[in-house]
Amino acid sequence: MTSADPADLGLLSPMRGAAGATGDAAVLQAMLDAEAALTRAQAALGLAPAEAAPAVTAAARAEAFDLPGLVVRARSGGNPVIPLVADLRRAAGPYGAYVHRGATSQDILDTALMLVAHRALGPVLAELDGVIERLAALAAEHRDTPMAARTLTQQAVPTTFGLKAAGWLTLCADAAERLEAARRALPAQLGGAAGTLAAFESDARARLSGSREPDRRQAPNGHSEPDGRQGPDGRVLALELPARFAAELGLAAPALPWHVLRTPVADLAHALAFAAGALGKLAADVLVLSRTEIGEVIEGVGGGSSSMPHKHNPVRATMIAAAARQVPPLTATLYASLAAEDERPSGAWHAEWQPLREALRLVAGATRDAVELVADLRVHPDRMAGNLAVEGDPGPASALVDRALARHHENRRET
Amino acid sequence: MTSADPADLGLLSPMRGAAGATGDAAVLQAMLDAEAALTRAQAALGLAPAEAAPAVTAAARAEAFDLPGLVVRARSGGNPVIPLVADLRRAAGPYGAYVHRGATSQDILDTALMLVAHRALGPVLAELDGVIERLAALAAEHRDTPMAARTLTQQAVPTTFGLKAAGWLTLCADAAERLEAARRALPAQLGGAAGTLAAFESDARARLSGSREPDRRQAPNGHSEPDGRQGPDGRVLALELPARFAAELGLAAPALPWHVLRTPVADLAHALAFAAGALGKLAADVLVLSRTEIGEVIEGVGGGSSSMPHKHNPVRATMIAAAARQVPPLTATLYASLAAEDERPSGAWHAEWQPLREALRLVAGATRDAVELVADLRVHPDRMAGNLAVEGDPGPASALVDRALARHHENRRET
Amino acid sequence: MTSADPADLGLLSPMRGAAGATGDAAVLQAMLDAEAALTRAQAALGLAPAEAAPAVTAAARAEAFDLPGLVVRARSGGNPVIPLVADLRRAAGPYGAYVHRGATSQDILDTALMLVAHRALGPVLAELDGVIERLAALAAEHRDTPMAARTLTQQAVPTTFGLKAAGWLTLCADAAERLEAARRALPAQLGGAAGTLAAFESDARARLSGSREPDRRQAPNGHSEPDGRQGPDGRVLALELPARFAAELGLAAPALPWHVLRTPVADLAHALAFAAGALGKLAADVLVLSRTEIGEVIEGVGGGSSSMPHKHNPVRATMIAAAARQVPPLTATLYASLAAEDERPSGAWHAEWQPLREALRLVAGATRDAVELVADLRVHPDRMAGNLAVEGDPGPASALVDRALARHHENRRET
Amino acid sequence: MTSADPADLGLLSPMRGAAGATGDAAVLQAMLDAEAALTRAQAALGLAPAEAAPAVTAAARAEAFDLPGLVVRARSGGNPVIPLVADLRRAAGPYGAYVHRGATSQDILDTALMLVAHRALGPVLAELDGVIERLAALAAEHRDTPMAARTLTQQAVPTTFGLKAAGWLTLCADAAERLEAARRALPAQLGGAAGTLAAFESDARARLSGSREPDRRQAPNGHSEPDGRQGPDGRVLALELPARFAAELGLAAPALPWHVLRTPVADLAHALAFAAGALGKLAADVLVLSRTEIGEVIEGVGGGSSSMPHKHNPVRATMIAAAARQVPPLTATLYASLAAEDERPSGAWHAEWQPLREALRLVAGATRDAVELVADLRVHPDRMAGNLAVEGDPGPASALVDRALARHHENRRET
Repeated sequence: MTSADPADLGLLSPMRGAAGATGDAAVLQAMLDAEAALTRAQAALGLAPAEAAPAVTAAARAEAFDLPGLVVRARSGGNPVIPLVADLRRAAGPYGAYVHRGATSQDILDTALMLVAHRALGPVLAELDGVIERLAALAAEHRDTPMAARTLTQQAVPTTFGLKAAGWLTLCADAAERLEAARRALPAQLGGAAGTLAAFESDARARLSGSREPDRRQAPNGHSEPDGRQGPDGRVLALELPARFAAELGLAAPALPWHVLRTPVADLAHALAFAAGALGKLAADVLVLSRTEIGEVIEGVGGGSSSMPHKHNPVRATMIAAAARQVPPLTATLYASLAAEDERPSGAWHAEWQPLREALRLVAGATRDAVELVADLRVHPDRMAGNLAVEGDPGPASALVDRALARHHENRRET
Repeated sequence: MTSADPADLGLLSPMRGAAGATGDAAVLQAMLDAEAALTRAQAALGLAPAEAAPAVTAAARAEAFDLPGLVVRARSGGNPVIPLVADLRRAAGPYGAYVHRGATSQDILDTALMLVAHRALGPVLAELDGVIERLAALAAEHRDTPMAARTLTQQAVPTTFGLKAAGWLTLCADAAERLEAARRALPAQLGGAAGTLAAFESDARARLSGSREPDRRQAPNGHSEPDGRQGPDGRVLALELPARFAAELGLAAPALPWHVLRTPVADLAHALAFAAGALGKLAADVLVLSRTEIGEVIEGVGGGSSSMPHKHNPVRATMIAAAARQVPPLTATLYASLAAEDERPSGAWHAEWQPLREALRLVAGATRDAVELVADLRVHPDRMAGNLAVEGDPGPASALVDRALARHHENRRET
Repeated sequence: MTSADPADLGLLSPMRGAAGATGDAAVLQAMLDAEAALTRAQAALGLAPAEAAPAVTAAARAEAFDLPGLVVRARSGGNPVIPLVADLRRAAGPYGAYVHRGATSQDILDTALMLVAHRALGPVLAELDGVIERLAALAAEHRDTPMAARTLTQQAVPTTFGLKAAGWLTLCADAAERLEAARRALPAQLGGAAGTLAAFESDARARLSGSREPDRRQAPNGHSEPDGRQGPDGRVLALELPARFAAELGLAAPALPWHVLRTPVADLAHALAFAAGALGKLAADVLVLSRTEIGEVIEGVGGGSSSMPHKHNPVRATMIAAAARQVPPLTATLYASLAAEDERPSGAWHAEWQPLREALRLVAGATRDAVELVADLRVHPDRMAGNLAVEGDPGPASALVDRALARHHENRRET
Repeated sequence: MTSADPADLGLLSPMRGAAGATGDAAVLQAMLDAEAALTRAQAALGLAPAEAAPAVTAAARAEAFDLPGLVVRARSGGNPVIPLVADLRRAAGPYGAYVHRGATSQDILDTALMLVAHRALGPVLAELDGVIERLAALAAEHRDTPMAARTLTQQAVPTTFGLKAAGWLTLCADAAERLEAARRALPAQLGGAAGTLAAFESDARARLSGSREPDRRQAPNGHSEPDGRQGPDGRVLALELPARFAAELGLAAPALPWHVLRTPVADLAHALAFAAGALGKLAADVLVLSRTEIGEVIEGVGGGSSSMPHKHNPVRATMIAAAARQVPPLTATLYASLAAEDERPSGAWHAEWQPLREALRLVAGATRDAVELVADLRVHPDRMAGNLAVEGDPGPASALVDRALARHHENRRET
């Protein structure tokens, strides 16, 4: 390490998670996975020699590439795929001509980001399910524990801690549902230079018409077949390719190339902003309830202080709150990129990459912090009772808890 | 009009739409509709005299209320429902005691905003369907019209105008799907002071135990029935009330009171940001293609200039683009409000109202402008051909158009 | 009022202020003021008959114009100046030809928005000064009042209420300084169609060369003077015009036309976001300190509740907090508009208008609410002492208060 | 490198700059610099032994610390200073007791971030000056080069390329002025646990009263001096310490501890958002003018494409545009953090760190890309003339260029 080392390991973002799944090495591997999947899909359709598939796949290991060098070289063309393709072609030796054939940088980078999201969100969803289960247990346990409902900072009427936990449960379940749906829909991207699949078609035609010599040009005007016979077949193969490519990667097949139809990114943005906010609600309540003067819940672990060792800070809730503040503006950038001009915009696409990754990390971190928060949240019914300064009873609060728990158990059965 | 008149009629927002459906008068009527629906629902369940229902409903006409006065009086308690309830009780005469019984301001205001959204989005969806149909027609008509695909501002390879239109179609259909789903899910809000339904229960118990005397207190501690017999019934009625209330209004029944479980607002925010971006994509392309030096499409109507009468500005696209820039930050505010502390937060809820309305207006306006834009969009295949400076053919572009159109026709059949 | 009335009087924004100074009528008057000032400036330089100045000025009264009609007609060209110019020309009768001469819509609308900001911020600054004075008094009064400092929601070590108030004072003074500087720098806008002042020059040349006949064309190519003699004079007059125009309005003279050099808007955005945040800090603290369980400060007025008449809500702080949440995203839209293509962008400019006005209103409202908040903030040293659960003394806190007050008194002297 | 390596080297952010100056290693060094400066300042005031200063300074080299370990350990307390202090104390051996004495984590982290900003912005300002000089040269060279002014995408009237360049110059100079002012004002942070300087005072009193034994407790209640004699001296030293500390680091001395008075962060946010937008304006124009069909300027270097080697993409402008889209939402997060509750908020502070760093990087990258963009921007007056389809002359455009250049030369003289 020198003080000019550009690495960001997360020193300024302790609220981040999914560090390994979203680091540059993971992104690099995902780009390589996309390239290898493309070659495999092409080989499966007869658009590349069978031997190219294992050869390119074997070459596509991130460890073999110079990541810092790629970062530097990415600047020239404005994306990391351009230098990576050159390196992977070299690494694939005699099969280098079957690397990135017909594809455009955006095919690979978009696919890689969807893969990264898919991989990062798997564990996040598992952790979120754990949070939800724990909240369900809290709601059941404290179904009838009275406490003050607070509105505009003032004690209002009584409620129960069970209903509060049931609310957290409901919101987190809504978040899980949205994340799960967005994850399931994450599509591969494949369209070629302008999203027409043209280079794939012309390449297919060239192969079908007997030319086994790989054509290295990316956009050959191979539309001059001697007769129309092979035409349809080349087109059919080109149109089949994206779904085959997606299947290789475990991603959804795209209806159309979505270079400038950013539905997947916007839907993912929604799920991420929602999840950050849902966990943020839990954190906001814990922060209030664990105030020194309230003390109705306390984080079991708590965090220290460099100047006040006696303190027991609600650090997990603070981290979640800090993540929840950062995500909505990041997703505003993603939503703004829907309005992307042309077949590839000059800025809107590039502006998505880092905010999308950062939003993923923040939601992953908030989920992990929520796991720790709820695992050992200490609830103090005595303080709740002692603080309660308003009259009345919580009425049907416990019935609402039952309703939320019933819905939760039904969701469990369905999945 | 005096120059101190506070009215904002839209002078600085020509890109707004749904003016009538979202103005203060419409919000006032929606609040009154919510109050009247509550009384009707209570009467239907035996929680209010049958005569109260028509009486309150008849009194709940916006024209009879002093809107400017309400605006001023709303400041004191920080929301407009408090003064409105006082006025409506007076207007309802002998049935005034059956106004807002057991409810909290947030029940009425949240419900009113959902009603406003529901009402505003009905016409928006109809208009958006019209845009989609027109885009489908454009895609079909220009299925094979070649033009330059442009990436990073440079001509890349050929595509077709049909594929471009099919992309717009696909994105707008995705927007319609999300808006439609969000609209269908818009729920009524009913929870009482702290979302426990307690006041509804105690009121029901009081009525069931023979006390027909309306209890004017909002949060009576009526839990001291002589015996437990009526208890369950009171609870059952309180738990039934929200769905009955929702049915009166044509809104969805909430699973739980959602005072601080803002799923409906966040989902609506997503649909609005998505729609603004989807239309923004259409506008961004039209703005490029109608540049003087490109001239491949021209807005049929066009807009004038105060200094250059000769100009033919793409004003509709400009308006849409301006709307698309404003919506994502507004929805960032809405997403941030998910993290709402307590049973009613001190700021996060209040911060939603105007941004939500403004986002609705901007999407409504962008949709209306899109209707006008596509209704008379002049497409110039000759200019497209003349500008085309790159070789190749669009390959399977027309097959992709067919795919998009097939999906569109399938969607039509389903709905 | 009908329920389709589009008027937004502020029903959903009780946290707004400066309603009269920012309403559509005020904007309309400001546009008219800009038009009249242009004619007066032109008359002063001999570019219009002397009689035109009073005639246009007299005609430029907002009450005489059909505001709702202008709102509707603004849609066609995408801005309200185009129809307004037509109406004002008509209203000016024989001097109609001297209305908007050489100007472009953006000259008038930008100037009007700067005027609106200038006018709205005058009272805001006066009110903010009042807040600052009151905070200084609180800091002095409670210089030595001990209370718990709280970090991450936990009591940390003792501080004083005086230091807390001194912090509010300091931040509010920083806000006032930034608002004052931004207000002082608000410039008039004058550049003509493309910011070159060309139409003003050609008009001047035409007049200087003897043609007294007003030329109704907006962009006459009057560069064909018989000789070069008058040329320089026409240019000099055109170059003098913006400063003369600005002087008529009490705005700063622009260095260059700033149609697409949005420094004034960005600087104003900063001042507004800063002020909202500074007042938001005050509100955030009051909201914590007035919690039922803490009770160290209480809003003197407080707000009621529609369901819980016993409550004493910190409504002013809530309103400020809600304003503070809305302003930063609005200013993000303004900052994004700096990157405006061409000599007038197709969207970025139009997207500024309403967010700028809304940010102004929110800051004005937050300031007004702060006036009321601090005017009658009840401070409870006994509760502060009673809550204090950590040991130590506040050390130099009182000296820091003295430092803040000294800085405050020095600022007072300077202004 | 393994694929679980969390390092973010910038693979997804080729538009970033200042990588070395803002990486985790640089932040770590800045935190260590802050700790060492504190010990030196304390030694200078007699609050630590003279030998502690060089000892701690020598120990404070980032290379000697386990950065990845610190990242992991930072999670527990929610900030990286807590584990760092433990490590630095150990590294300082016998002088470990004089590390972080009286300080709180926020003192060190805020100071470190100001240092990072100060160091990163030095080269950025130098590069921005280079951009400005080159723009001035372009403006002068093309003072009279006619081209079409474009408004709402349509050719409007003639302007000159000189005036366009003069506009870029003006906006970039405004950006430089704001960045320079913000950088000059970046303050050190020093307040102790709650911003009262109390621990520094009690420590000073302990030393002055003869106790040379370092007191390891962070918040000793050392207010029980036998007599009041030393009191004032201890206070004076505590009050002097922040300025001395700041001087050690070349940062501005703070008026008050600014833990929750975030003026420096907000002012820096403004300068960064402004700079991103100013460069974004340059990029937006270059992107339009370099369109294939317009071709009036061309990036000298240009960027390639993975699928279309023939293309000459305006990559530098694209990178700048992508940066300009990301910065305003990041600064919205920073502005929102002004409203920070208590003496240290639970989330608002933590949410600043990464967005602030990211905004710095994006502005640094945009500046670097602008250097490259303007260094070899190819201007084609022939294409400008050929495209010009509107009549008229640019009028005083050249005089406006002269005015902008005069202002520029005056600025140069002043600095």
